[in-house]
Amino acid sequence: MTSAVLAQIDAYIDEHLPATIDELARLCALPSVSAQGQGMDTGAQFVRDMFIHRDFATETMSTAGYPVVVAQATGSSASTLLFYNHYDVQPPEPLELWESPPFELTRRTDENDMAILVARGVADDKGELMSRLAAIDAVRSVLGDLPCNVKFLVEGEEEISSPNLPDFIEQHRELRQADACIWEFGGVNYQDISVQYLGLRGICYVELTAQTATLDAHSGLAGSIFPNAAWRLTWALNTLKGPDEHIRIPGFYDAVVPPSPRDLGLLGVLPDEAERYQETYGITQFLKDLSDTELRREEVFVPTCTICGLTSGYQGPGSKTVLPAQASAKIDFRLVPDQDPADIVDKLCTHLNAEGFSDIEVTYLGGGRPARTDPDHPFVSMVREIAADVYGSEMLVCPMIGGSGPNYPFIHHLNVPISTAGVNYPGGRVHAPNENIRVNDFVRAAKHIARIIVGMRDLNV
Amino acid sequence: MTSAVLAQIDAYIDEHLPATIDELARLCALPSVSAQGQGMDTGAQFVRDMFIHRDFATETMSTAGYPVVVAQATGSSASTLLFYNHYDVQPPEPLELWESPPFELTRRTDENDMAILVARGVADDKGELMSRLAAIDAVRSVLGDLPCNVKFLVEGEEEISSPNLPDFIEQHRELRQADACIWEFGGVNYQDISVQYLGLRGICYVELTAQTATLDAHSGLAGSIFPNAAWRLTWALNTLKGPDEHIRIPGFYDAVVPPSPRDLGLLGVLPDEAERYQETYGITQFLKDLSDTELRREEVFVPTCTICGLTSGYQGPGSKTVLPAQASAKIDFRLVPDQDPADIVDKLCTHLNAEGFSDIEVTYLGGGRPARTDPDHPFVSMVREIAADVYGSEMLVCPMIGGSGPNYPFIHHLNVPISTAGVNYPGGRVHAPNENIRVNDFVRAAKHIARIIVGMRDLNV
Repeated sequence: MTSAVLAQIDAYIDEHLPATIDELARLCALPSVSAQGQGMDTGAQFVRDMFIHRDFATETMSTAGYPVVVAQATGSSASTLLFYNHYDVQPPEPLELWESPPFELTRRTDENDMAILVARGVADDKGELMSRLAAIDAVRSVLGDLPCNVKFLVEGEEEISSPNLPDFIEQHRELRQADACIWEFGGVNYQDISVQYLGLRGICYVELTAQTATLDAHSGLAGSIFPNAAWRLTWALNTLKGPDEHIRIPGFYDAVVPPSPRDLGLLGVLPDEAERYQETYGITQFLKDLSDTELRREEVFVPTCTICGLTSGYQGPGSKTVLPAQASAKIDFRLVPDQDPADIVDKLCTHLNAEGFSDIEVTYLGGGRPARTDPDHPFVSMVREIAADVYGSEMLVCPMIGGSGPNYPFIHHLNVPISTAGVNYPGGRVHAPNENIRVNDFVRAAKHIARIIVGMRDLNV
Repeated sequence: MTSAVLAQIDAYIDEHLPATIDELARLCALPSVSAQGQGMDTGAQFVRDMFIHRDFATETMSTAGYPVVVAQATGSSASTLLFYNHYDVQPPEPLELWESPPFELTRRTDENDMAILVARGVADDKGELMSRLAAIDAVRSVLGDLPCNVKFLVEGEEEISSPNLPDFIEQHRELRQADACIWEFGGVNYQDISVQYLGLRGICYVELTAQTATLDAHSGLAGSIFPNAAWRLTWALNTLKGPDEHIRIPGFYDAVVPPSPRDLGLLGVLPDEAERYQETYGITQFLKDLSDTELRREEVFVPTCTICGLTSGYQGPGSKTVLPAQASAKIDFRLVPDQDPADIVDKLCTHLNAEGFSDIEVTYLGGGRPARTDPDHPFVSMVREIAADVYGSEMLVCPMIGGSGPNYPFIHHLNVPISTAGVNYPGGRVHAPNENIRVNDFVRAAKHIARIIVGMRDLNV
């Protein structure tokens, strides 16, 4: 591909930016909040129409939850690129903290005088979707055709942990015909360097509940003689992990694959975020006094057991002398390859029984397996290298991040490598009031995506 | 005292019952809810006027909180009987569960066709106060005089743990001139036998707080590297007590005086409440499989460490992947003689520091020392024995109850023995909607109190 052709594609993206932002504004005007169950049908229909308008073979497919929009367009090579996006957004609350209406795309400038677009979902994930369609429009216009087949899978439940996506992918084998995948998120870091995220930890989220009576009792009456749900819960939790941070569930670490020398090498060149964490969160010391590469390694390659919430008895101001009948804890295990949430729940239950806590009820609230893509896969290398043409430098590789998402069925059922490439930046306030993207990041992401589509033609995958 | 005179006193109480209930209704109409700060001045004024109307030397004395009404009347002997009562009541909420307005004394019949009086505070403690005034009116009318000096101390903060009463008693030494005290509560048990309660456990109520950051963090980002407040709290709590129920704070049990053979003998003849507890609270097993006398002994003579509440992070439905910056627990230690809440807080803090939890903040939310009266004190024996004349049998002695109250300054600063004698019964729904007393219990309590006042004249105290 000559640089003249790429320059034409870039020019098309630049020239059509106002129309692209108009379309993005109409998409962001739809309050498709999956957690609150509103605007989901309208959201799915709008996305479907965006693809139909672009002559994609488009289908809105039902799941046990919200539908998935699947769209595909044929290209001039045998290669197929799959985009994973979602049309649902986080709830906009707290509303009073928004400086403009959350479902009204508003153009402003940030403190560095950069143009930004503000709306719920503009960063996560409607801006991503729009940037990809802008790239496709430009490539088609300049080349007269798509240089590879392009598929989209746009789900409606990403913000509620994608409970139905793994089954959907398992059931729809036609999706298997992709060679590579671009993930729903991506963008630049604090140093304005584009980052390629290649792995996500898995998650196993459970609630532990102790119920020792049918009614709360007066602590004066019952303190010495009734079982106390809050104590039962405390003791049960204590068997899971101690101050040394070692998780005590037998077999918990059995399936853990340690990071390779290549992984550690990649971690070694990532920027040190320790000071930023300390400033943002008021942390004075990291666990185990971690720092530098050790901190970055533990951050993502070590599985966790986090208490996300505790609730029991009286929680108001002052004192109330009550002995609680019920207590519960929300627990989030972050898993690394090749741990499996179903196996972890089994081991957790076996452990609690063995420790004398068969009275503790374990409720599985959801989860997903960890998965990662080889940093040296040819597709991944191509995505990383051609970024230099847009961003001025190759992408920085982050082999794994601490968060979770449904990448496992893509990597292990569809057998596709996944790279990120997207519109986000650290100031984007994703999930928070005043969610935003910078216009420049939107344009750069579209140009990067256009290059990835063009690059697919010659990729030997 | 001849039985003819007692019969005249009883007749006076019976004949004046309608007027007494009218006065009680006016008292119960005042919503003197200390926890909510309403109606307290009017409540104190009304009580003051009840005493002034009866020619008591009466004073409304200020404290750091709500005032104490102090009243005294001189009798024909040197003996002085002190009554401890309170004019504050519990909040009436939840209002929708009341079958008649909470601040409108309503006469009904219960499921056994017994006449009852329903109102917030009628059982705790306005009915008690009124029954004592009814007894005094009757004794004065029949004898022409009081056979002993009578003092009242009516406070306004009993329902919020009497935070200012110990200081008040310490500062007002004129109150020391009493020989004996009747406590604010009392009544009959499920077997309709009047019970004499002679001791109250102390209490030490603290809040433990862990703060590990200034902001909650995403559990995916922070799970492996940030300290977690909920875990810090869980581990700190676990050092306080294990499933063997032994409290691990060094020195916690040092001051405990074990029950005497006399105490154990008294416990041995108390009715077995195990089945009733099991039915009411759905308890299948008591701690340590306790039963019979052992259950009653542990219930009151063993100090406790109860988690009354736990709060941290996300507590709503489903899952939220948050790593909490803050976590706290409400802890209630019930103390037995001669434990001291100030000493317990010291030992708790020393223990937490020694166990590596100096980051856990300990907030003292209030407390009071345990105290008990000798079951064989002549006043106590007199109160117990003359009950037979009204109730058909002597009072059953309960040497200690599990609950707490401000009896320590009375017993140890005023040096008075304390007995209970009152209007309550197990169906009285104290602190709950439809709080009530039986009219017959009110009358029996007034007649018992009249006999105690008469008995004071000849008591060698």
